[in-house]
Amino acid sequence: MRAAVLRDGHMIVRDDVDEPAAGFGQVLVEVKACGICGSDLHFAKHGATMVELIEQMRGGPDVGVSRVDLARDVFMGHEFAAEVLDVGPDTAGPAIGTLVTSVPIMISTTGVQDLAYTNELPTGYSERMLLSAPLVQVVPNGLDARRAALTEPMAVGLHAVNRSGIALGEGAVVIGCGPVGIAVVAALGQRGIEPIVASDFSPMRRSLATQMGAHHVIDAAKVDVFDAWSAHGGARQLVVFEAVGVPGVIDGALRSAPTGTRIVVVGVCMGADQVTPFWGIAKELSLQFVLGYDLTEFSDTLLAIAEGAVDVSPMITGEVGIDGVPGAFEDLAHPDRHCKILVTR
Amino acid sequence: MRAAVLRDGHMIVRDDVDEPAAGFGQVLVEVKACGICGSDLHFAKHGATMVELIEQMRGGPDVGVSRVDLARDVFMGHEFAAEVLDVGPDTAGPAIGTLVTSVPIMISTTGVQDLAYTNELPTGYSERMLLSAPLVQVVPNGLDARRAALTEPMAVGLHAVNRSGIALGEGAVVIGCGPVGIAVVAALGQRGIEPIVASDFSPMRRSLATQMGAHHVIDAAKVDVFDAWSAHGGARQLVVFEAVGVPGVIDGALRSAPTGTRIVVVGVCMGADQVTPFWGIAKELSLQFVLGYDLTEFSDTLLAIAEGAVDVSPMITGEVGIDGVPGAFEDLAHPDRHCKILVTR
Repeated sequence: MRAAVLRDGHMIVRDDVDEPAAGFGQVLVEVKACGICGSDLHFAKHGATMVELIEQMRGGPDVGVSRVDLARDVFMGHEFAAEVLDVGPDTAGPAIGTLVTSVPIMISTTGVQDLAYTNELPTGYSERMLLSAPLVQVVPNGLDARRAALTEPMAVGLHAVNRSGIALGEGAVVIGCGPVGIAVVAALGQRGIEPIVASDFSPMRRSLATQMGAHHVIDAAKVDVFDAWSAHGGARQLVVFEAVGVPGVIDGALRSAPTGTRIVVVGVCMGADQVTPFWGIAKELSLQFVLGYDLTEFSDTLLAIAEGAVDVSPMITGEVGIDGVPGAFEDLAHPDRHCKILVTR
Repeated sequence: MRAAVLRDGHMIVRDDVDEPAAGFGQVLVEVKACGICGSDLHFAKHGATMVELIEQMRGGPDVGVSRVDLARDVFMGHEFAAEVLDVGPDTAGPAIGTLVTSVPIMISTTGVQDLAYTNELPTGYSERMLLSAPLVQVVPNGLDARRAALTEPMAVGLHAVNRSGIALGEGAVVIGCGPVGIAVVAALGQRGIEPIVASDFSPMRRSLATQMGAHHVIDAAKVDVFDAWSAHGGARQLVVFEAVGVPGVIDGALRSAPTGTRIVVVGVCMGADQVTPFWGIAKELSLQFVLGYDLTEFSDTLLAIAEGAVDVSPMITGEVGIDGVPGAFEDLAHPDRHCKILVTR
């Protein structure tokens, strides 16, 4: 079958990938829509750094990405909605033809594997893939595959908001309005947080932030987001969401955030970053690093999208087939044009 | 009167400081004991950097240190116990001769001033100083001035422990067993936290950590503190207290702390530090920067010392008069010899 894979730092399209077959506990699906995630772009460019950082790290989960061999083709694509083609032997699963999604994890009797960066299992940029039957979630309410595929990135935003402990009466600053920042804005809006002050360099992204629920959206090139916060947030307790993930953003927040601000780091910065602990100490700031979501957050997000509580349609700014994946990776390097490109069929 | 002051980066002793006189709302005291704080050593060495960092910082409290003029003599010494000599006009205060202490703050009708780094008001390295009457706390239970002077640094440890949210059933790693680390160990011990795993390069400091309540104390030169945690802490939720304040320690904790660890930064690192956000993200770590204490924590600490719940005597490793302050600053550069040197009379 066909699949777009990462080979030597570039996306290429293969048509000779082995057809997967559903074993015990597995469901075979045809991918209908899969979002291209910024992490995939990161991984394509900095995969070696990521693997190295994980090797140096201790005390972490045994994540699959640590076992990725960059000398071999890497399957990516972890934001998918798909149609059930087959259910493995002795396995309970949805009826053939059902539209489903899943957290990108494969459970087997020998352990857990990520369905995000793997040499072994075809993932969302493939025609077909295997899911773990116990993790499959039926897409409810007649929601289409395109929007259902946004469940995963939107769950990242919900998780960040949950971990922040933000409460009504507190306000938020969202630095960066890429897909992660937008997901945070949407989750904050759903929770009734006000004001939500967001910043980005891109006019397209700023416009999207407004559509998705930000109350004040500012041009990062012209206005300091903390000045905007002072103007709109007043004396409210502030929670900052750092959704950029480039060096210097955390330190900027430490320098300028008001006393007692909680800073949630949801942007993934690869490599080293410089910070000034003194600023954090003088103002008793906190940095909460967050990653992913849990199963409940994933389900809640799917439901919120399916019931129309969150309209993700404006986030979908492009669609390609599998053949278009390499080009889409190039396009996404220009943040002014796109939020989320879907690989559809 | 006599006072040791900071002039051009060095401590000198003056005998021509104006005698303070108690105004409205003030109490004049004779300093009986004042601890030399690591922050004072930092300030003597890096005062210009500290003032510069505060000037660059936004959104912080209007701390007095930002107004310190390093071209003039700076009064320091904020860990004091003192005897009441006089109470200002129309002011309620303790009887003459009462032993008191206070948070190092002077409240007046024109604002709040630190009694820590100031050009204006004599502080704990002086013969006499002024306190703010509403903030004066009587030393209870016949506690002597030497131990009462330890209230301030011990309150820093209690505050860090309070802000960490550590609960019974969770364990702690304390990196660095200087006075701040020791204060953290003592506060953890009082709370019944177990195990407390502490590390330091100095045998004297390690021995003190054991005396003050650490369950496992390791030589930082020989054993990684996170290996020691694995051995003694098992699967408990971990809270790390970074009480060193030199570049690299925070990043080391990010690299090696187990998933979900809360890291409390109580060591004051001057200047820039390098961190690897990826490690924080991959393990969903948090960094809580903390500073100081509140009035209740100060009172609680004084009471704990006065009632014998915390015995601070082993921390007092030296005593000098005002004339000995410059030499004591030199001595404290060798962490193996001292924990807390008191200036007494």
